[in-house]
Amino acid sequence: MTTTRLADGRELLYFDDSEPYVSGTKTRRLDDPRPLPDRFLPIAGPDGVALPVTGPELRRDPLTGEWIPMAAHRMNRTFLPPADANPLAPAKPGAVYQDGEIPAEDYDVVVFENRFPSLLAVPGVPDAPTVRSGEPMWTVRPAAGRCEVICFSSDPTASLSTVGPRRMRTIIEAWAQRTEALGALPGIEQVFIFENRGKEIGVTLHHPHGQIYAFPYVTPRTATMLTEARAYRLRTGRLLGRDVLDAELEHGERIVLESEHWVAYVPFAARWPVEVHLAPRRDVPDLPSLTDEERGDLATAYLTLLQRLDRFFVGPQGEAIPLPYISGWHQAPVAEGRQDSRLHLQLFSVLRAPGKLKYLAGVESGVGAWISDTTPERIAARLQEIA
Amino acid sequence: MTTTRLADGRELLYFDDSEPYVSGTKTRRLDDPRPLPDRFLPIAGPDGVALPVTGPELRRDPLTGEWIPMAAHRMNRTFLPPADANPLAPAKPGAVYQDGEIPAEDYDVVVFENRFPSLLAVPGVPDAPTVRSGEPMWTVRPAAGRCEVICFSSDPTASLSTVGPRRMRTIIEAWAQRTEALGALPGIEQVFIFENRGKEIGVTLHHPHGQIYAFPYVTPRTATMLTEARAYRLRTGRLLGRDVLDAELEHGERIVLESEHWVAYVPFAARWPVEVHLAPRRDVPDLPSLTDEERGDLATAYLTLLQRLDRFFVGPQGEAIPLPYISGWHQAPVAEGRQDSRLHLQLFSVLRAPGKLKYLAGVESGVGAWISDTTPERIAARLQEIA
Repeated sequence: MTTTRLADGRELLYFDDSEPYVSGTKTRRLDDPRPLPDRFLPIAGPDGVALPVTGPELRRDPLTGEWIPMAAHRMNRTFLPPADANPLAPAKPGAVYQDGEIPAEDYDVVVFENRFPSLLAVPGVPDAPTVRSGEPMWTVRPAAGRCEVICFSSDPTASLSTVGPRRMRTIIEAWAQRTEALGALPGIEQVFIFENRGKEIGVTLHHPHGQIYAFPYVTPRTATMLTEARAYRLRTGRLLGRDVLDAELEHGERIVLESEHWVAYVPFAARWPVEVHLAPRRDVPDLPSLTDEERGDLATAYLTLLQRLDRFFVGPQGEAIPLPYISGWHQAPVAEGRQDSRLHLQLFSVLRAPGKLKYLAGVESGVGAWISDTTPERIAARLQEIA
Repeated sequence: MTTTRLADGRELLYFDDSEPYVSGTKTRRLDDPRPLPDRFLPIAGPDGVALPVTGPELRRDPLTGEWIPMAAHRMNRTFLPPADANPLAPAKPGAVYQDGEIPAEDYDVVVFENRFPSLLAVPGVPDAPTVRSGEPMWTVRPAAGRCEVICFSSDPTASLSTVGPRRMRTIIEAWAQRTEALGALPGIEQVFIFENRGKEIGVTLHHPHGQIYAFPYVTPRTATMLTEARAYRLRTGRLLGRDVLDAELEHGERIVLESEHWVAYVPFAARWPVEVHLAPRRDVPDLPSLTDEERGDLATAYLTLLQRLDRFFVGPQGEAIPLPYISGWHQAPVAEGRQDSRLHLQLFSVLRAPGKLKYLAGVESGVGAWISDTTPERIAARLQEIA
């Protein structure tokens, strides 16, 4: 791993597949010569008076108690790559790095802070919640987190499913490192690592990449899972995630992959048209807790799973349809509920059939009620069939 | 209101705008002459042996404690209207009512059970939760609820925003009647009334219609709101929804409409690109609790709001862009938490700008964390500007 900074102060880290670990020093330059303005410099207001950069804000929803990040912050949005450029591609030799985010002629895996993040710790902005307009119902605080991008390959036509086990292993190392490093930042409560793939879920940048969010709060779904796991522990003395996995293993019907250290299964109450969970055999709270062996085994298991998902649906000419998917690591939060958490990857898709999407409309978006259009057993049978 | 039954036993109700209330008796026939099979008759299995109709199933997600309806049920899917037909249009004179759902030559408002519902109470199927395969982690029970469709007009080119106050009043009566009638059915815990409009949220049938779901459980988002409101009452002795409304009224910045009995405002922590809540001035738990005057006033307030939303975005030629939206009534559940509930309509859109959607990807769908791409004040300013 080689750490550097972009011209506007953002952190950028190279992770290499193999020795010599010289990222950013050989074909790459460690300084970023772009004229990017410092993100935290005061900017000129309409009357010429400098406005402080306050960063994004969190508002507490009084009806649900949930924190909602708001993009109300005055960011210095003076630079955006052209719409047809790929900002995640490596810079061409001799380029002045104007068009891209990565000032290097090549890279294996690179992680950097998102230029226009939803969560951002602004130096000097106090972190404590305050009340807006003297109204006790309206609580705000800085959205003091971090949003990072992780590029899986310098090849814009690659996909996570095709990077190969060695690269996947580097990616896993990067995920584990980011989980630890971001979790150690002041105020961070949860690190969420995920990938959105496919235009069906709004991805406009096809360069293979994922995202890492460091939240200054425990996210609502994670909080729900912790509440459930805690109640289970108080009732039974046991770890919920362990018993969920054991139930799947004992009955076997929805198991779709088993390796030395990992098990993939379609969960009993899968809510998406395609959904599979990948869990370690050993109880661990997060990615940093995995051993070398578990990481190596994960690299091949994850790749196998991704490749199989791309054969899940078949088009009219029998051609495989690359699955649009969301893939997210459920890890223990930084402090809260660690003893009730168990690491697992949730991989799911909104594709019901070729060309047919599940939409999150009134029932899902209005009252949070999910309805499955299929059964977990059908999903598992298909994943077993194409193994 | 005139009640009748379709050939397969489903209930269908006509609601009329004005006297004489003769729906289903004059231009309509009350009997449905279609050869629809009874939905609850056993169907032939692959080996010719009759399989019982078990109806849809609820599975309890062990990780979250949420109930997930599964479309695993063996429904008698012997009939589907042609893909290009409008099953919500009134039947043509002399038609044998094969193509549509409504065996009448005209109607004002009609409500009927969805033919292939996600929730369905099947006679004779016991309602108690059971354990699947002897595995205590896997709890199932019948998805014994009801899914209804409500047609706002017999004119397929109409829209709820254009039906006019008299029709809107009839629709409100129908909503209130369904809330009461469905809430009185055994096992129903919550009635959710909503409308999905626009292809952007997956609506394929453009005939103006909404839906009514009667859930045999309190939905997750409603449960979260009740928890929050209960904690607020225990802390302050007050009704949360009342104080939320009062805070908006006192400061006024995000108020977008005021009538004698109703107030519309963009909430302090709005999470959607466009979001507005419409609440009564008087504390009421649900639609049936509204007085005649409040219902009449709601009809015009709701129409005003809908018409304004259709001017929210403007296209390149200055043309108004009909807003794709989801509109849902948050009502008190049937039994639980009624003292902590306050009726309000939540109207929101996934449209961020003409042609640009907010997608619910990793952050929202993975860990339930919402991120707003705008601010509530900007939404309110636009709605005030086009008033």
